[in-house]
Amino acid sequence: MTRIVVDAMGSDDHPTPDIEGSLSAAREYGVEIVLVGDEALINPVLTTRQTSGISIRVVHAPEMLTMEDKGEELALKARHKDANNSMAIGIDLVKKGEADAFVTAGNTGAAMLTALFRLGRMRGVDRPALAPSFPTATGSSVVIDIGANPDCKPENLLQFAIMGSVYAEKVRGVKLPKVGLVSNGEEEGKGNELVRSTTPLLKKSELNYYGNVEGKEVIGGVVDVAVTDGFTGNIILKTSEAVAKLIVDNIRTAIKSGGPLALLGGALVRPALGKVKRLLDPGEYGAAPLLGVNGLVFIGHGRSDAFAIKNAIRVARDAVDSGLLSALKLAIEENLKSQNPKTDGGNNLL
Amino acid sequence: MTRIVVDAMGSDDHPTPDIEGSLSAAREYGVEIVLVGDEALINPVLTTRQTSGISIRVVHAPEMLTMEDKGEELALKARHKDANNSMAIGIDLVKKGEADAFVTAGNTGAAMLTALFRLGRMRGVDRPALAPSFPTATGSSVVIDIGANPDCKPENLLQFAIMGSVYAEKVRGVKLPKVGLVSNGEEEGKGNELVRSTTPLLKKSELNYYGNVEGKEVIGGVVDVAVTDGFTGNIILKTSEAVAKLIVDNIRTAIKSGGPLALLGGALVRPALGKVKRLLDPGEYGAAPLLGVNGLVFIGHGRSDAFAIKNAIRVARDAVDSGLLSALKLAIEENLKSQNPKTDGGNNLL
Repeated sequence: MTRIVVDAMGSDDHPTPDIEGSLSAAREYGVEIVLVGDEALINPVLTTRQTSGISIRVVHAPEMLTMEDKGEELALKARHKDANNSMAIGIDLVKKGEADAFVTAGNTGAAMLTALFRLGRMRGVDRPALAPSFPTATGSSVVIDIGANPDCKPENLLQFAIMGSVYAEKVRGVKLPKVGLVSNGEEEGKGNELVRSTTPLLKKSELNYYGNVEGKEVIGGVVDVAVTDGFTGNIILKTSEAVAKLIVDNIRTAIKSGGPLALLGGALVRPALGKVKRLLDPGEYGAAPLLGVNGLVFIGHGRSDAFAIKNAIRVARDAVDSGLLSALKLAIEENLKSQNPKTDGGNNLL
Repeated sequence: MTRIVVDAMGSDDHPTPDIEGSLSAAREYGVEIVLVGDEALINPVLTTRQTSGISIRVVHAPEMLTMEDKGEELALKARHKDANNSMAIGIDLVKKGEADAFVTAGNTGAAMLTALFRLGRMRGVDRPALAPSFPTATGSSVVIDIGANPDCKPENLLQFAIMGSVYAEKVRGVKLPKVGLVSNGEEEGKGNELVRSTTPLLKKSELNYYGNVEGKEVIGGVVDVAVTDGFTGNIILKTSEAVAKLIVDNIRTAIKSGGPLALLGGALVRPALGKVKRLLDPGEYGAAPLLGVNGLVFIGHGRSDAFAIKNAIRVARDAVDSGLLSALKLAIEENLKSQNPKTDGGNNLL
């Protein structure tokens, strides 16, 4: 049975959405759930819910990391051997092999740092990266990185591309994922220095490399994986959210102030717009994996509701069951070998 | 009378939209229009239109720059003393003082390069920048740069900030424009190396500096000017366009496939949605100024229709009439002085 640790103190409204999402996931996906967090907050919620026939248990963590935790103090809390916040205790369960993956909707920076310190980087990965799925015209695509690494080197982007490709293949079921490099223009040669230096690495890799992509191709679903530094990825994420909100708010205002016919029309189109609403709901896509650490860690939006938590657990389950971690290790090892091909000892002697 | 040169060969459907937009602008704004382009294409259109009472004339340019023009060949065409394409001839009219501003909906790179070579950079500006207006929740804001300079130094971004602020004040009528620096997080200290090195320059400048901004603040209209390198600016532009298209397409599909009631509802809300459509129409905002060259140059979207051309001419007229060019020069000179304050000769001798 796949065992998922869920940070009960993660979401903005914790612990209720985190617990309810966990219960739904346990029931729907048959996974074993370990809720980590303050028992005094978790148990009152849990005891009022139906838990027969599902596998769920609580591991007490008296402290929690919040949005206030940052800088050096955060690093200490993330790193300390005896840290007793829910992220540290939850991730340690994965590290000790007592669980298969960790899911949190808490402070993204805190979760990344805790995972990095406690699980360590995968051999051959210089920078772990966050790889959320974006809604596109044809489904969704993976954007990597979206915030962990604001300044990157070409080698980092190559590693992101490899990890993103493995993730798209294993967890999202895409065969030979098309990998694009985010740039300010589709033509080869366009881009900033980082993009231009990364292009040859991607070209000579084993990846199904598509070339440069702009917003049109990323959002249009032309590629399955869009590779970029964390600064640019974060700009794409935040701009997308802001534009979607601007349009939806404006449509709502236009209908409300458009007179009785517009109001009636608005009521009539509402059911049809449900699909569009889902398109814009980050909860639909669960959580983003932090790829490149020695363990499976998924980080969701702070605004996650029970539905988003449930989806995050589903994605974590898919990652475990598909053998994502060993596939990532293998792909990264292959990359290391191709960069430093061992010369044949025998030939050297000739 | 303000004299605007319009590239008749600019838009994708040239010369009709370019000519029709020019005629509307001449009539509506009382500006004098110089159409530059192939007479053999312009005159047949022009002769079928009503031109009495407006000031419009044609300057023949036998050649034109297209999307095919790039690289070294483009540089030659942009630079050559006797270049006879419509951009070179049009920009030369501004250079010689025979017109006050140049407007084109042609190849952005070609227009920038032609302007740069023929007008030259403003003293104190290392990199001219493109500064379009973006729709926001409260109106619009200026984003600078959006493509001219993929790799920037902190000093470039400071110059962009100064130019963007002057533009927002002079042409868009914003008093003490709020200037934000695009970053992956609002808090000071967030950002890539470029952002973190630019912050102190903006803080000690005379600008009304707001701090770091994300998509939420840019699109939300919290700042009047959003400063960024051309790579990131281009990503913001292209992502915004792509997300807007994705949402609008999905709404359309949802309504069409939502059954008769949804179809009726769609028809009823259509008038109210006109405002939203305008929000997403780049033509509404005219064209983007290329700031930092010795002359006024405005570059519009290739897909410009007559309405977009007319708006581009209006923005160019506003720039001329507000004295934008000398205000830019003054602000940039002030910046140069503050960076290299002249020591008092007398004191030096003491």
